[in-house]
Amino acid sequence: MATNGTNGTNGINGHTNRFDPHFTKHVIDLIGPETAPRHKEILSSLISHLHDFIREVELTQDEWVVGVNYVNSIGQAYRKNRNEAWRICDVLGVESLVDEINHKIVTEQGISPTSSAILGPFWSPDTPFRDLGASVVQDMPPDGQLTYFHGMIKDVETKKGIPNAVFDMWQASTNGKYDSFDPENQSKHNLRGKFKTDENGRFNFYCLKPTEYAIDTSGPSGDLLKLMGRHPNRPAHIHMMVTHPDYIGVTAQLYPNDDPWLETDTVCAVKDDLLLNFTPVENEPKDAVLDCEYDVSLLSKRYKPDSTMLMGNAAGEKL
Amino acid sequence: MATNGTNGTNGINGHTNRFDPHFTKHVIDLIGPETAPRHKEILSSLISHLHDFIREVELTQDEWVVGVNYVNSIGQAYRKNRNEAWRICDVLGVESLVDEINHKIVTEQGISPTSSAILGPFWSPDTPFRDLGASVVQDMPPDGQLTYFHGMIKDVETKKGIPNAVFDMWQASTNGKYDSFDPENQSKHNLRGKFKTDENGRFNFYCLKPTEYAIDTSGPSGDLLKLMGRHPNRPAHIHMMVTHPDYIGVTAQLYPNDDPWLETDTVCAVKDDLLLNFTPVENEPKDAVLDCEYDVSLLSKRYKPDSTMLMGNAAGEKL
Repeated sequence: MATNGTNGTNGINGHTNRFDPHFTKHVIDLIGPETAPRHKEILSSLISHLHDFIREVELTQDEWVVGVNYVNSIGQAYRKNRNEAWRICDVLGVESLVDEINHKIVTEQGISPTSSAILGPFWSPDTPFRDLGASVVQDMPPDGQLTYFHGMIKDVETKKGIPNAVFDMWQASTNGKYDSFDPENQSKHNLRGKFKTDENGRFNFYCLKPTEYAIDTSGPSGDLLKLMGRHPNRPAHIHMMVTHPDYIGVTAQLYPNDDPWLETDTVCAVKDDLLLNFTPVENEPKDAVLDCEYDVSLLSKRYKPDSTMLMGNAAGEKL
Repeated sequence: MATNGTNGTNGINGHTNRFDPHFTKHVIDLIGPETAPRHKEILSSLISHLHDFIREVELTQDEWVVGVNYVNSIGQAYRKNRNEAWRICDVLGVESLVDEINHKIVTEQGISPTSSAILGPFWSPDTPFRDLGASVVQDMPPDGQLTYFHGMIKDVETKKGIPNAVFDMWQASTNGKYDSFDPENQSKHNLRGKFKTDENGRFNFYCLKPTEYAIDTSGPSGDLLKLMGRHPNRPAHIHMMVTHPDYIGVTAQLYPNDDPWLETDTVCAVKDDLLLNFTPVENEPKDAVLDCEYDVSLLSKRYKPDSTMLMGNAAGEKL
């Protein structure tokens, strides 16, 4: 892996283990006895992997200085609605990985309910309940495609519908903005709604076919994307948070299966069971032009009685 | 290693490999074909180790948010003379590790010249040459201990002295400050000097016995030290940069062997061959109260013709 100039030149540094084998342990052992065990565990692992990374690539002095300056630039670029550390985590797949670690469920029988995906910062605790069959489209954009969205929330083991489960959904309008960040075009609660399933576990409502948008690339996270040769686009998505007192909730994003950015999502949050199929319809009662059916599977809380939902985050920006 | 609440509870997540085994590769594979090979190598290793760290400790959502906020705080705390990203690297041993990777030399015969240690930001390109036997102490602090410092710069293979080698030294005064950062107490070039070895490779001059100081703990690097249960003290040290046209130069810090902070240096920059022994003397010609002898070993440049010295850095603060 060595690519810098200190190796193999005229017979110096021929010893492959020329680096002090005790150095990383020395740094970890500096952690004092009063540090909480969990902090010690995290810091020890962090130091170990950080050193391994540096040794693996044999980081040069100049490269290290570039890294120091980059880390400083992250906080310097921090603004309201521009949390660069958060965005960089997303670009590097960190938020999705943390989401998976904390929310992925596989039973001993190998059964998994619907996958979770990152919440993002636009969930609202104030979203109103709407009647089944209602529309969340309060302000129809000219380029919006009205969609009849329906499905069932079911028990992943029994496959039976779960009555009185809540399907809480939110989505951006066709301009890529959510209601509260777009007051000139959208009224409060536009493209948001909570729906309670019927006695068969079924729900249905009208929404827009979601549209993709690019994330802001003006900060260090944008520089990282460019360095990696990546585009800034997120696939279109509808957010959902599904809850029921007796079931482990799931928060996810649902993506049209024909979206061009599924494989290369900027924030790496696409999973195979979160894809939506939109089909054209004609003469629909409310003039919807598309139909989309999606079922959600939940696992009983008896598997995890202490289950809690992540009910918000600190990013304050669109993901 | 799992300590969060998602494991082994009532039989869920019993599958040890429940995390997507392809996820890290997926993120790495997003790197485009136009990214420079070295950038790709560094980013791939960084992503791989970052993900391994997160999986190893099973980072919780809350812990991750703490990390995001901490990373943002680093750049937000950046000030002139307070480069927090740099300091955090020092606390985590990163600068010392990078120094070792870039400067440690072991010949195929297993011979090593004098070790290097981090340069720090206080080297000056303007330091004057002084005659052998001169004093660098222009402004004697009341609590200073004048020291006669002498030694030989020799070829690590032949053990012979190297004439006309340059021993460039600098040190803080007893208040922990370097000349240019302490204009009210120190004149320009105080406690700095360049000395050229004589025909036997010998050098000698007068300086102060160095005194330890604590690094500033007002920023995120100080918070990290506290979290790790560590003190902020650096062992006392004299900086040296030794050069000769025909030899690979060495930059290092030299520490009194009785310093209480050698084992727990905040920046992890102490090495066994960089220790100084100070012995009391009486009736010394210039009234020095201590004597210190230290020899430096250099390796011929024919082992590494492209050798360059790091001639400055961007930290702008005391290390």
